[in-house]
Amino acid sequence: MQTSALKSTFIRIRINKLFELFVVSVIIISALLVGAKTYDMPTRMVVLMRFLDWFISAFFLVEITIRFLAEHRKRDFVKSFWNVFDTLIVLVSLIPAENAELAVIARLVRVFRVLRMVSFIPELRVLLVSLVKALPQLGYVMLLMFIIFYIYAAIGSTLFEAINPNLWGDITISLLTLFRIMTFEDWTDVMYETMEVYPLSWIFYLTFIFLSAFAFLNMVIGIVVNVMEQEHANAKAEAEQESGEPNLKDIQQQLNQMQQTMKQLAQKK
Amino acid sequence: MQTSALKSTFIRIRINKLFELFVVSVIIISALLVGAKTYDMPTRMVVLMRFLDWFISAFFLVEITIRFLAEHRKRDFVKSFWNVFDTLIVLVSLIPAENAELAVIARLVRVFRVLRMVSFIPELRVLLVSLVKALPQLGYVMLLMFIIFYIYAAIGSTLFEAINPNLWGDITISLLTLFRIMTFEDWTDVMYETMEVYPLSWIFYLTFIFLSAFAFLNMVIGIVVNVMEQEHANAKAEAEQESGEPNLKDIQQQLNQMQQTMKQLAQKK
Amino acid sequence: MQTSALKSTFIRIRINKLFELFVVSVIIISALLVGAKTYDMPTRMVVLMRFLDWFISAFFLVEITIRFLAEHRKRDFVKSFWNVFDTLIVLVSLIPAENAELAVIARLVRVFRVLRMVSFIPELRVLLVSLVKALPQLGYVMLLMFIIFYIYAAIGSTLFEAINPNLWGDITISLLTLFRIMTFEDWTDVMYETMEVYPLSWIFYLTFIFLSAFAFLNMVIGIVVNVMEQEHANAKAEAEQESGEPNLKDIQQQLNQMQQTMKQLAQKK
Amino acid sequence: MQTSALKSTFIRIRINKLFELFVVSVIIISALLVGAKTYDMPTRMVVLMRFLDWFISAFFLVEITIRFLAEHRKRDFVKSFWNVFDTLIVLVSLIPAENAELAVIARLVRVFRVLRMVSFIPELRVLLVSLVKALPQLGYVMLLMFIIFYIYAAIGSTLFEAINPNLWGDITISLLTLFRIMTFEDWTDVMYETMEVYPLSWIFYLTFIFLSAFAFLNMVIGIVVNVMEQEHANAKAEAEQESGEPNLKDIQQQLNQMQQTMKQLAQKK
Repeated sequence: MQTSALKSTFIRIRINKLFELFVVSVIIISALLVGAKTYDMPTRMVVLMRFLDWFISAFFLVEITIRFLAEHRKRDFVKSFWNVFDTLIVLVSLIPAENAELAVIARLVRVFRVLRMVSFIPELRVLLVSLVKALPQLGYVMLLMFIIFYIYAAIGSTLFEAINPNLWGDITISLLTLFRIMTFEDWTDVMYETMEVYPLSWIFYLTFIFLSAFAFLNMVIGIVVNVMEQEHANAKAEAEQESGEPNLKDIQQQLNQMQQTMKQLAQKK
Repeated sequence: MQTSALKSTFIRIRINKLFELFVVSVIIISALLVGAKTYDMPTRMVVLMRFLDWFISAFFLVEITIRFLAEHRKRDFVKSFWNVFDTLIVLVSLIPAENAELAVIARLVRVFRVLRMVSFIPELRVLLVSLVKALPQLGYVMLLMFIIFYIYAAIGSTLFEAINPNLWGDITISLLTLFRIMTFEDWTDVMYETMEVYPLSWIFYLTFIFLSAFAFLNMVIGIVVNVMEQEHANAKAEAEQESGEPNLKDIQQQLNQMQQTMKQLAQKK
Repeated sequence: MQTSALKSTFIRIRINKLFELFVVSVIIISALLVGAKTYDMPTRMVVLMRFLDWFISAFFLVEITIRFLAEHRKRDFVKSFWNVFDTLIVLVSLIPAENAELAVIARLVRVFRVLRMVSFIPELRVLLVSLVKALPQLGYVMLLMFIIFYIYAAIGSTLFEAINPNLWGDITISLLTLFRIMTFEDWTDVMYETMEVYPLSWIFYLTFIFLSAFAFLNMVIGIVVNVMEQEHANAKAEAEQESGEPNLKDIQQQLNQMQQTMKQLAQKK
Repeated sequence: MQTSALKSTFIRIRINKLFELFVVSVIIISALLVGAKTYDMPTRMVVLMRFLDWFISAFFLVEITIRFLAEHRKRDFVKSFWNVFDTLIVLVSLIPAENAELAVIARLVRVFRVLRMVSFIPELRVLLVSLVKALPQLGYVMLLMFIIFYIYAAIGSTLFEAINPNLWGDITISLLTLFRIMTFEDWTDVMYETMEVYPLSWIFYLTFIFLSAFAFLNMVIGIVVNVMEQEHANAKAEAEQESGEPNLKDIQQQLNQMQQTMKQLAQKK
């Protein structure tokens, strides 16, 4: 009985508007703290920030615990992606920042607390989910793009390795160089260098730019078409449900009734 | 009685086509003046330009006053965003340009007189309003983008500060550096520098580019879909209103009449 | 009578397939000649090319004359934009290339003969016309963009002139620098230079990039929406014309007939 | 009889799931091998890789032979583009890699084995086919773009050759320089150089950028509109087939039946 009383208290806390506001404030403060740490600061501030850090860690731990205890069935807590996501961020940021060796890692891990903003604002969650959902649809285009990159990287590192090993040393470096060329970042410097040895190597660069740009365009258009179709379907479904306008099915039913009446008329005679 | 006569005079002036043309000319001259001031000029021209500047300031003041006095209810004048906008620009550009200390500020403020062109041409006003209206819809995507930027800036300034404080000194500088990377501006120079210390730091840059490009694309597509849907809805509403073609509702009404006639037929027998 | 015989000969020549093919070949040869002239060549080739140049000039003159004479009403010849376009190109390229002073101009003018390709291939003409037609629709967005550029150029040349007159000397140079920034071409170099004097000048660059990118996006989307709507309207009109499927009007007519029959039935009784 | 038994064995092999999996593995291994060769490696690994190379060549040859023998009509084998594609890749990569002279060519040719991935995964084949199909539709836009490039290259190499022969030496080099300008890669360096001699040459660059960007945009929008229309048509056809909803034709047929009944009613009297 006592547990149940405690549980209902937790639930009351969880759905409390003030508590929610307080959680958001703590998340924003933790984000600001992450930014503030990148500045040089007087010792007094450092001490204050260390205290704040402790407080935030403790508060997040308490908040997650409340959310866990307020859950009716513990299984449901684990099933929600965002609960697991929050718990992981909170647990991982418990790494002590004082330990000299782990200091950098601890600081980096605390950065991800900013992501709790995403898990707390529903609109951002929807956005992130839609981004992630769009990825697999683009899977094959990305595979095709990778094959194009891979072939060009293999050719590049075979032909140009002797010219500039920093750019074409092995296939990994070549892939990075090709990505750089795709972003048009000083790509002519790379090209002019190899053109001194192979005067026709501009063919390599131009075909690569055309192929990758084309594949990229295809990807972008793929997303656009997809998003638009979904929007279109949603809009249509909504319009049909809302509008009280008759559709062809209604007309057909009415015609059926009329035909029935006519047959009866004909039979009567 | 006298006030009313004066008011109607003002109204007559305000709606006069010639007066309107004259206002546009003055706005264009003030814009040209702003440009002309950036060239070195002989003293005689400087004197002429100072005179022109006085004239424009005075004229704009008179024009706004006429518009204010010609308004039936003074409240409506303040309610219109563009009236307030014009008044602010005119008042603020009254700062004397002769004062040595304020000279630069006075010159800068006069630049914004060019914006009166926007407030005077209805098509530009519509365009600007639609731009501003599109912003909040993109609010959440921009927030998500900012969170991505913030996390990467925090990681960047934690890891790379020692390598190049000019690029990764604190979180503000890092944000600027990341914006530079997003525009692909010499981003490989930034990457190669950090790769000498952390050979795997290319992962940082590539994931950032993918994430920010993806979020940006999403934003663009968001605008496109939105604009198109609106256009589509407008076009449909227009088409339905204009076309004299029968719709399903008309057909249904006619069928109802026929059913009525049939019933009467059946009853007669 | 003799003139009429000559005229019909001209018309026969003009619509002759072989003659058309020959004209295309001459246009392509004149285009290749333009390219060939940019290479260093032995004297013998130069002489040959000069001869070819004479021949092409003469041939184009003859071809235009035939087209002019073959026209039934001379007025129609002048009315067609493409006839005037061709005549201008042909006439202007009659400037003698031997004259040392005019040599460069004569060579440049001959380059525009390549444009005859556009006037000869109908698909390219359609494409060019559609490009030109799209321009005025974008007029206001381009005006807004110019106002943004103008204001930023005025601010830039006021504040940054002392820092680097090569980039911010007067409003024309500033406009060019801003266009460079819009294309992201070494824009950070420009920014870092002014940030040494005005540390907050990054606000100037970032707001400019956002505003111009936004306006540019708007322009692009404007074109897309426009083109799509037109395509959509065309497709719809075509579908309705081609399909033998009944539309609501047909249904209504049939219902009217049936109502007529029913009334007669009711009256008969 | 014996041949037929052998043939059915081949067919059984070809449609065997395990065999298919094995082929995919060999393709992936051959792709990895291509990448691995770009690294420096100990002699033992080189020997192993040479053996693997032999094995892959032999295996691909066997696989193609089985596919050929399993085909009912030998003609159909040659008719399929992908069979010819695979056979070519396999045959060409039989060039011995040991021969010192051909070593580089042999290595390059083996790179194209990665393309067998495309021919093996149906989704990638569809993607590639759709890419290739989109090309001719863009033919005229690309021709127009080439004409723009050609005219500007001719003008550029006429005027600017003396300034920098490395960039404007002849029409081929100029075309490459213009492509570089279109990608915004250090285009201002090129412009500032010529502006020292011809201060107005910025007009050349700006008009070129506007024209090429406009033509490029047109191309992109062309693809988008095309893809969308196709998707739209497919979706509509699918929806009509799947939905059991009545269409206007059904309604018309029913009305025809009713009219028939009515006529009979009228005649009976």
